[in-house]
Amino acid sequence: MMSYFSEENSAEIVNGRIGSAALPRPAEVMSALVRHLHAFASEVHLTQKEWELGVEFLTRAGHLCSDERQEFILLSDTLGFSMLVDAINNRRPPGATENTVFGPFHVANAPLRTMGDTISLDGKGESCLFEGMVLDLEGNPIMGACLDVWSDNADGFYDVQQPGIQPKWNNRGRFITQADGCYSFVGIRPVSYPIPDDGPVGQLLALLGRHPYRPAHMHFLVTADGFQKLVTHIFVGDDPYLTSDTVFGVKQSLIAPFSRVENGQTAWRAPFDFVLVAA
Amino acid sequence: MMSYFSEENSAEIVNGRIGSAALPRPAEVMSALVRHLHAFASEVHLTQKEWELGVEFLTRAGHLCSDERQEFILLSDTLGFSMLVDAINNRRPPGATENTVFGPFHVANAPLRTMGDTISLDGKGESCLFEGMVLDLEGNPIMGACLDVWSDNADGFYDVQQPGIQPKWNNRGRFITQADGCYSFVGIRPVSYPIPDDGPVGQLLALLGRHPYRPAHMHFLVTADGFQKLVTHIFVGDDPYLTSDTVFGVKQSLIAPFSRVENGQTAWRAPFDFVLVAA
Repeated sequence: MMSYFSEENSAEIVNGRIGSAALPRPAEVMSALVRHLHAFASEVHLTQKEWELGVEFLTRAGHLCSDERQEFILLSDTLGFSMLVDAINNRRPPGATENTVFGPFHVANAPLRTMGDTISLDGKGESCLFEGMVLDLEGNPIMGACLDVWSDNADGFYDVQQPGIQPKWNNRGRFITQADGCYSFVGIRPVSYPIPDDGPVGQLLALLGRHPYRPAHMHFLVTADGFQKLVTHIFVGDDPYLTSDTVFGVKQSLIAPFSRVENGQTAWRAPFDFVLVAA
Repeated sequence: MMSYFSEENSAEIVNGRIGSAALPRPAEVMSALVRHLHAFASEVHLTQKEWELGVEFLTRAGHLCSDERQEFILLSDTLGFSMLVDAINNRRPPGATENTVFGPFHVANAPLRTMGDTISLDGKGESCLFEGMVLDLEGNPIMGACLDVWSDNADGFYDVQQPGIQPKWNNRGRFITQADGCYSFVGIRPVSYPIPDDGPVGQLLALLGRHPYRPAHMHFLVTADGFQKLVTHIFVGDDPYLTSDTVFGVKQSLIAPFSRVENGQTAWRAPFDFVLVAA
């Protein structure tokens, strides 16, 4: 008869209710979540008013979610939770390119383009040549690797954030490597931008004295048969937000040497090699 | 330059971003939440797919919230989180009546009624006399205490769940004590009922092999000048769900001796005294 609630054994009592019909993994995950959430409330002596604010926060976040906006992903991102889950699930050996957050702006099936093509269709921004190789851990070029790339435009918006204003597929494209493993394309030098901060997550950031900015980056999703999927960015090396990315996506190894080009076809050049791990 | 994300120091890095503009209490609460959420993800090695399920769960819960439905409160209730917050904020000396969850079905400004009146307006259910005293810790009667009471009807629904079907204010009322501290009113012997389980919270309970039922209870909100607010229920002593209340609201001291009345005005009688603590 010890199933009545008590403050001292609250999590144990809640988790003791898990029935025999529960599968082991959901039972494991939810009982750990209950333990940690109860430990949190006990540690800070959460007040009734704070609990109400939490319910109200989640409710407003939920009401804001739509096909174009995912406030819970923003919340997870800004609490570093997305990066932690990414890190836990993508531990790689030294020498392999590191993962970072996928973000909400990827669009599947971007146009397949030829090496050297430009992905910037709106004529804005400073042009930049992105080039390098896709390699395995032994340094061998990978043939048939697909580089799916996307970035914001010079105004700090992805095309999907400005339908009707930006050309469709602006600053997006897919490139397939040949036997030499090389890739190259022309985009713009990306610019830093704020995540959507007009909702509860933006209010939370303000409450914590944090800014909503991400440092400038180019997204890469690199896939090849027989290799682990790589989800990453390369960051513009001198961005003022590098050490304060609001979603914690920056890793030292992903900062690329964006350098000025004198008398070239582009204003900038960003060389970067991607090293994949066998699946 | 140690502000780049790392799996090992994830929570420390996230909390290191809290700015000097943050007030101490939000900073304390949010940094504890981040620590516990990160510890949770690390402990269970949360997968990307499970993270996606979590985002989807919160999104569906948010979309279900309306003026009539609060899925996040249901979530908090069924994880025992609401009861924990209630317990933390309502520690009372021995002899005082214990708190329990407020629940989502209270309506402010129920009709003021005279002692002995009935609150059951739909003619359904087994009648029950509720009676007792409102006392201070020394056993003195409290004059001018307000007992705001509400329960489901014999079909297991509160009036606000069935507008147009149940009479307005069915099984609700407010009663003010005289100098003797006594209260009495006629209601029904409440019945056990499931919380709304047609949404994500219901699915979560099913996944955990749990039922959605609450044992039968009468709600009391007891207030008096100079005393702490008491939010509680009294539970019907032989209810089959007493030890498995899906929101963990039962406490041993709140189980009332509902007893049959022979040849009386009501079929049942439920005596219970409320003991308030000075504010």
